[in-house]
Formats: sequence, structure tokens, C-alpha cells
Amino acid sequence: MKVFESIVIVGRGNVSYHLVKAFGNRVKAMIVKETNFIEDWYSHLPQLTSYNELDFLPDLVLICVNDTAIHEVIEKTPFDVPVAYTSGSVKLSDLPNRLKLGVFYPLQTFSKNVATDISKVPFLIESENVDFAVELKELAAQISSNVLFANSQDRFHLHVAAVMVNNFTNHLYARAFDFLKEKELDFDLLLPLIEETSSKLNRMNPMDAQTGPTIRGDEKIESKHLEVLNGYSKEIYELMAASIKSLHEKNEL
Amino acid sequence: MKVFESIVIVGRGNVSYHLVKAFGNRVKAMIVKETNFIEDWYSHLPQLTSYNELDFLPDLVLICVNDTAIHEVIEKTPFDVPVAYTSGSVKLSDLPNRLKLGVFYPLQTFSKNVATDISKVPFLIESENVDFAVELKELAAQISSNVLFANSQDRFHLHVAAVMVNNFTNHLYARAFDFLKEKELDFDLLLPLIEETSSKLNRMNPMDAQTGPTIRGDEKIESKHLEVLNGYSKEIYELMAASIKSLHEKNEL
Repeated sequence: MKVFESIVIVGRGNVSYHLVKAFGNRVKAMIVKETNFIEDWYSHLPQLTSYNELDFLPDLVLICVNDTAIHEVIEKTPFDVPVAYTSGSVKLSDLPNRLKLGVFYPLQTFSKNVATDISKVPFLIESENVDFAVELKELAAQISSNVLFANSQDRFHLHVAAVMVNNFTNHLYARAFDFLKEKELDFDLLLPLIEETSSKLNRMNPMDAQTGPTIRGDEKIESKHLEVLNGYSKEIYELMAASIKSLHEKNEL
Repeated sequence: MKVFESIVIVGRGNVSYHLVKAFGNRVKAMIVKETNFIEDWYSHLPQLTSYNELDFLPDLVLICVNDTAIHEVIEKTPFDVPVAYTSGSVKLSDLPNRLKLGVFYPLQTFSKNVATDISKVPFLIESENVDFAVELKELAAQISSNVLFANSQDRFHLHVAAVMVNNFTNHLYARAFDFLKEKELDFDLLLPLIEETSSKLNRMNPMDAQTGPTIRGDEKIESKHLEVLNGYSKEIYELMAASIKSLHEKNEL
């Protein structure tokens, strides 16, 4: 079994931050776009702007850049160096082929300076090269207890669902935050409710957990709520209410 | 200070369930619409269908019924019995006046058979009668460490925000659940992400926590995601993306 003793990480975004922390001194260098601005968290590592500056061949390059840049970074990576990328949505088959190319996708939201228990993060692994897939799975298993193989399509569908439950959920928090700020009310009053809303899913599925005026059919309250909303918040309320009703009817059938 | 030793609860919904549990043997009777169907959790209590069947005057009636029914229940309650109701959206001034009428609103989502740590639930208290307001606050403080006075307007605005962060958030979970079920993928893979999304709010505000393709300006990924969605899920994706952009621009100003 291959052990990846020397890892080079490309990119200095949120995923990169958490993988640098997780792999510790196995990360030997960072490849970044420019070196005139260096953040603290990778200042202890050599910062290179191209592979030419590397004085060793790493066991693995982990590409943690925007989806649009992955193709180009792979093309520039020395052909005999194993490469994995961390995107949820980029298909393996859309990338330039090489002996060892794989996916190392953490299904989690990461922010810099926010600690995350990486041992619980699901890692989705994929490679056409079965040996490399197994190696990547082993690597992920060293930092997480939740590792599985997933093909590009499954990973893509999970990413779409992740956008719904993370990006859009967070945006609802942001809209509520913005609304309460305007009314000079404290958003923190909602934190116990927000925590309960997510933790309920450990005990029941979201269809059964649905509460509120829409599911009760209380249109009078819905109209009163809509009176104090405007712009996107109002549009979101209307669409969500209609969608709750529609999904409920579908599940009643 | 009045101690409410005998409480009668009207209604047998989710809020009622958790207040019966919280107040234990201080709850002396339930008033329900019909008695031919009795759920286990209140089977130990006398079940009445009207106040006429009461053989004592309770210290407090807690009305936990749908918003549309509150007015009628108050009118039927003996005039000299103190009454509080648990709605987020019904204004005190819209209800028939009496000496002791107040609001006892728990800002939380409740489901039967799902344990909730009521000690962390914010209770919003209101009454025109200052003494009664203080009494209700004391009562709430016996079961929760998070009790505050709030007028009808503030309570209403908090309820609107609560609908956003709970009802609509849960609906996003339900849409993701439905989507992954159709793709034969396991919704539970999203649970660490969902938990992290909510718990992040203890460390940063939701504006700063926003991640994902929209905030990165990755329209290519957005288009790919939209290709596999349809119906309400697609509409929700489009509206959320536009709203994220709009709020981000507003905050950049």
C-alpha cells in the first residue's frame, strides 16, 4: 500500500486550509497564484507559483482550486505525479487523463479559522485506476471515519443536494439576520431553533419534521407574514410555501 | 408572587405536548375538541371538551391551539381565569380583553415524541397587565433560562424570521431528501454538513458563513446543477442564487 508521505497542495482556499491542518507535516509545499500575499496558516510551508520550483517529486498533488481552474492545473502537473482534486461537480471524464487521477471530495462546508471535526466528514473517492482509488480511500480513512467510493454522477447529485442544504439554508439564515437587523431584533434568539431544526434530522426524516403555518394550512398567517416582507425575502416566502404544499401533496398520494 | 399551581391546557398539538411534559403534575386537565381519540401522552389527565366540565377554577389556562381558534377559546374561558396563549403571530390587541390575558410564546419547533431541551428555549412574554406579565415571566423562568418580554410586533417579526430559518430550512432538507431518494442516494451523508451549517452560526454571522458556487461567482456549475433539477427544486435554486447575489451586493456597498 502506497503511503503518501509528501503531499503538495494547490490553492489556498477553505478546503486547502482544512487539508493542510489535517495532513500536518506530510504537506511539503503549497502552490499558489501569487506569493506577495501570504496568509498565516500556510506561512510555514514553501510557497511556489509553479511546479518548476519544486525540487522533489511529491507522492501526491491535491488540487483545491475553483472548478474552472482544475483542468489547467492538471495539465501543468508533471505527468508521473499522482493527482487528486476536491471538487463536488467536476466529472473525472472531463479532465485530461493520466495514470493516476482521482477525486478526493470532502462533503462539508469549510471556513478558514472555523474548526471542523474532519473525522466525521464524508469523503467521496473516485478514480478509473482501481489501485489509486484504493490508495486515496486509505488516505482519506487516515483523517475521516466516513469514506466511500462514489462515481462522478453520484458525487455530482450529492453536491447539488449539498448546495440546497448548506448554501441555501445558510442564505435563509442570512435573510432572517438581515430582516431582524432592520427590525432591531437579536438574531441570536433564533439559535436554539436553528440548532433544533438540524438536529431533529437525527431522529426523523425532514418530511415528518415539517411544521409551521403552511403545513397547517394557515393561510391567514401566511398573508400577515407576507405583508412585512419585501423583495427577495417575499419571493422566497411565496415560493417556499407553494413548494411545501406541493411536496406534501406528492407524499400524501 | 402568584404561583400557578393548577394549569389547564387547551389543545393537544406539538406545543401542548411539550408544555404538559415541562409542567408535570401542575397540569390538572386538558381541554380538547373531542375525547373519542386520546393520545398516550395526556391519557393520565382528565380530558374535557368544555370549561363547563371543570370542577375547579384553574390558576391559569394555557391556550395551545391554531391561531385561528384562539379568539373563540378565549371568549369561552371564564372571565376571572388568567389566560395565556402560545402563538407567535396573534396580536394581543386583536383579542377580547380581560383582566389577565398574556402571551407565553416558545420560540422553538416542537414535534411530539422528539425530546427538546426546553431550558434553552426562548420564551417571549407579553401582557397589558404588568403584574400578570411578571407572573408569566416567572412561570417561564421555572422551565427555561431564556425568558424575555417582547411586544406583539417584535414577537411577530421574530416569528416571521423563525418560519424562514425553521420551516423553510426544513423544506430545503425535504427537497434534498426527495431529490436524493429519486437518485437512490443516502440523505444521511448530508447530516455532518447540515450540522456544521447550523453550528457555524455560534462562531460567525451567516453573511460571513456563505460559501458555494453562487458566492464564488461560478455560473458554469450553477448551470450544470440546474440541468438536473426540475419543478420547484429548480425554481428554488434559481431564486436562491439570485437572492444570494443580491444580498451579497447590498452588504458590499
